[in-house]
Amino acid sequence: MAKEITSRAENYSQWYNDLVVKADLAEQSPVRGCMVIKPYGYAIWEKMQRLMDDMFKSTGVQNAYFPLFIPKSFFSKEAEHVAGFAKECAVVTHHRLMNNPDGPGVVVDPSAKLEEELIVRPTSETIIWSTYKNWIKSWRDLPILCNQWANVVRWEMRTRLFLRTTEFLWQEGHTAHATEQEAREEAMRMVNVYADFARNYLSLPVVVGHKSPHERFAGALDTLSIEAMMQDGKALQAGTSHFLGQNFAKSFDVKFADKDGNLQYVWATSWGTSTRLMGALVMAHGDDNGLVLPPVIAPIQVVMVPIFKTDEEHAAILEVMDRIKKALEAKGHSAKIDDRDTLRPGFKFAEWELKGVPVRIAAGPRDLAAGTVEVHRRDTLEKFTVPVEGLDERIDILLGDIQKNIYAKALKFRDDNIFKVDTWDEFKSRIEQGGFLLCHWDGTEETEAKIQEETKATIRCIPIDSAVCEEEGKCIYSGKPSHRRVIFARSY
Amino acid sequence: MAKEITSRAENYSQWYNDLVVKADLAEQSPVRGCMVIKPYGYAIWEKMQRLMDDMFKSTGVQNAYFPLFIPKSFFSKEAEHVAGFAKECAVVTHHRLMNNPDGPGVVVDPSAKLEEELIVRPTSETIIWSTYKNWIKSWRDLPILCNQWANVVRWEMRTRLFLRTTEFLWQEGHTAHATEQEAREEAMRMVNVYADFARNYLSLPVVVGHKSPHERFAGALDTLSIEAMMQDGKALQAGTSHFLGQNFAKSFDVKFADKDGNLQYVWATSWGTSTRLMGALVMAHGDDNGLVLPPVIAPIQVVMVPIFKTDEEHAAILEVMDRIKKALEAKGHSAKIDDRDTLRPGFKFAEWELKGVPVRIAAGPRDLAAGTVEVHRRDTLEKFTVPVEGLDERIDILLGDIQKNIYAKALKFRDDNIFKVDTWDEFKSRIEQGGFLLCHWDGTEETEAKIQEETKATIRCIPIDSAVCEEEGKCIYSGKPSHRRVIFARSY
Repeated sequence: MAKEITSRAENYSQWYNDLVVKADLAEQSPVRGCMVIKPYGYAIWEKMQRLMDDMFKSTGVQNAYFPLFIPKSFFSKEAEHVAGFAKECAVVTHHRLMNNPDGPGVVVDPSAKLEEELIVRPTSETIIWSTYKNWIKSWRDLPILCNQWANVVRWEMRTRLFLRTTEFLWQEGHTAHATEQEAREEAMRMVNVYADFARNYLSLPVVVGHKSPHERFAGALDTLSIEAMMQDGKALQAGTSHFLGQNFAKSFDVKFADKDGNLQYVWATSWGTSTRLMGALVMAHGDDNGLVLPPVIAPIQVVMVPIFKTDEEHAAILEVMDRIKKALEAKGHSAKIDDRDTLRPGFKFAEWELKGVPVRIAAGPRDLAAGTVEVHRRDTLEKFTVPVEGLDERIDILLGDIQKNIYAKALKFRDDNIFKVDTWDEFKSRIEQGGFLLCHWDGTEETEAKIQEETKATIRCIPIDSAVCEEEGKCIYSGKPSHRRVIFARSY
Repeated sequence: MAKEITSRAENYSQWYNDLVVKADLAEQSPVRGCMVIKPYGYAIWEKMQRLMDDMFKSTGVQNAYFPLFIPKSFFSKEAEHVAGFAKECAVVTHHRLMNNPDGPGVVVDPSAKLEEELIVRPTSETIIWSTYKNWIKSWRDLPILCNQWANVVRWEMRTRLFLRTTEFLWQEGHTAHATEQEAREEAMRMVNVYADFARNYLSLPVVVGHKSPHERFAGALDTLSIEAMMQDGKALQAGTSHFLGQNFAKSFDVKFADKDGNLQYVWATSWGTSTRLMGALVMAHGDDNGLVLPPVIAPIQVVMVPIFKTDEEHAAILEVMDRIKKALEAKGHSAKIDDRDTLRPGFKFAEWELKGVPVRIAAGPRDLAAGTVEVHRRDTLEKFTVPVEGLDERIDILLGDIQKNIYAKALKFRDDNIFKVDTWDEFKSRIEQGGFLLCHWDGTEETEAKIQEETKATIRCIPIDSAVCEEEGKCIYSGKPSHRRVIFARSY
């Protein structure tokens, strides 16, 4: 093996950390809690961005850009929002450094203190709604459907690459509507866009649901999320969509004249996904050899490794591989020939497995003589011999199969690890092995808090799929009556 | 007119400000010096990004992402760099707010002071070279060709939308090489990528050249730039590419083992363009009616305005326009039907002229009966009648013509406003009318400074096109001998 990674069985958490670093996705930076996203990791993020961006735009959303900094006073305008976000954040207090009068280096210039401190945005509702106030006068100005791709900062105490970092990259949509119904529909539409994206492109069989009031976004009246199951049975919240009611419109005094000329407060949503999705991708599909990337979001879909001893053999194989590469590219697939002359084929095989490339093609002089190549699929680790003739067609189909198979495998794992649990004893023992527990809950924050205190499990969501959970029962903890099951799980 | 803008003749500077705001490109935010880029402006920036990104990638560059924050001590490591950048910047000193003990709102929590202050990146050489140190061991690790799309902050005292803002969006390439020659070639390659991009897509006939030592990037041994001429004859620096020598490698101790096993310092370049390009685009091509966008980067290339009185007429025209739209889209052009029912055609015409849409199509019942539409081109303001039959072909050709014509017009303007000037008196009078003055200069910083002091003109560049300027002569100011002309101009 090129680079050793801890096995999942030995230490799942260490396996994840090893994989992220050794597959060249990201690494810690010298700045506490901030990561460097390396080219290979960033290429995956770019593919995610492009795919999501197209999906957003097809619903009428436009991109825009709002300031990085938010005046401190803006946060105080929405009471719950400030409680949720303004506490752990990066605060800019000065705008100049000066040469250190007492030695080498530079120090903060005390005379350059800002009149009002600026907060590095942890999320942009406040700065955006202060802007929307100028954009919205009448019903004709609505809806406004804006998204921004940006960096945000939340001063997290414990950080992990992609999963929880002080700075992260994300997209945040912020929409303004004339009616409550329209805003609620928008929040639902966007969580479904996220679910489609996660399922079809990331091969993540996510569950869509409402958050419990306690788990809502600070300032939201309803929060919807997509929840993915990792291979240790824990949940990972992979995207959220919020119905914000008129909270921000009221805080920033944003009203519109309706068709009758009456002034009304505007209704809002916001919705976001982040580089956290990279963590979900790694954790959901990876194995002990490395990443397993769904072909749709793999930066390299097919890698080719020539095997040879003489220069003549080398030239002959390269010529064939070059033809295969062109044929694959003509079908819209990305292919790479790994022709590094200082590394042995076995080393290369291990490296591309580590990096999760969906299909590997290897060929040596004997394959060439037989008019075949060796094809290896990353998801199942199977190898088979395939004629060069018509190879591009076969690979095209294979990539589609791999995409579906990775999803099917994750779906089976998820369904095998969703349990209807009806007694508190079973809950306590089940939760130790991970999984999503479908339980009755009495709807109180008190019960929710006690369950978390005793088991570290939280309500991940109240699924919107009513077939799964609408049923009468009794709360798993308090025994009080309940009308539907919710999902409890430990989470990232 | 929908929205009045000042004419260029009346006040060029106010014309620019009006245009940026009224064409919905950007606006001031509540945060000092920071702008909001509105959807229409951002759509243009996105097109620029996509086009440049493809060009970068075709030279082997990969994208990555590095932290927003830079530890204060990093800046002190490169002496010129800290002098150039660390002085006017946003400084993060705390990581927490708390409820105000003396009243409403929140205040900075004094107990959450950072041990070392963090600077919001004004540019990323320092954080990137501290990272490259871990990536580079041997000649096999080189070259590294990374780019990042990011926001940066420079605490500017006087700001103007797009041209000079406290926060702006940009891309910054940072490359590492084994040899000086390779690094110098890379710096030249990238400034030429910028020049091609500016000429072919933005229709800006830029001049490529070296900066004088005084005007170099802080920490560079050579700075190349593209300089565009605005309609007032002033220069606008639209992109720069720096040969950094081994300065950052030495500051961050980045060495590689060459093929003989000897440790050597790595050679560096960096290069960047920003949302300033938006300002160049507006200023170079706009007219008194509004923006004039080159078709390649226009978010909407063709807008259609139906003219009708009755519902039947309306339906018939929409049907035709819908067919035209589909045909244009099939050719890869973006088209929009402006079917707003509350606005008159004249208002719509003015609005789309303001927004610089390259081609407008209007049609009413009489046109329909004749099987024609009225086509209006934004660049020349000409109108002509064109048969619906084959319209998509005609528009396709027209868009290409407009792209070329906007460039040709800007090129003529530039060439009409480049003057060879050989006397100091002529210099002083010419510079008042704007334009690029090709003059001999004695090569000293002293003369450069005096010329700037007396005329506000600076050396924009020493053009790489030797035919234009390699010639013996005498310095326009000092009379000392000179071997080549340089370009002096006032600038943004």
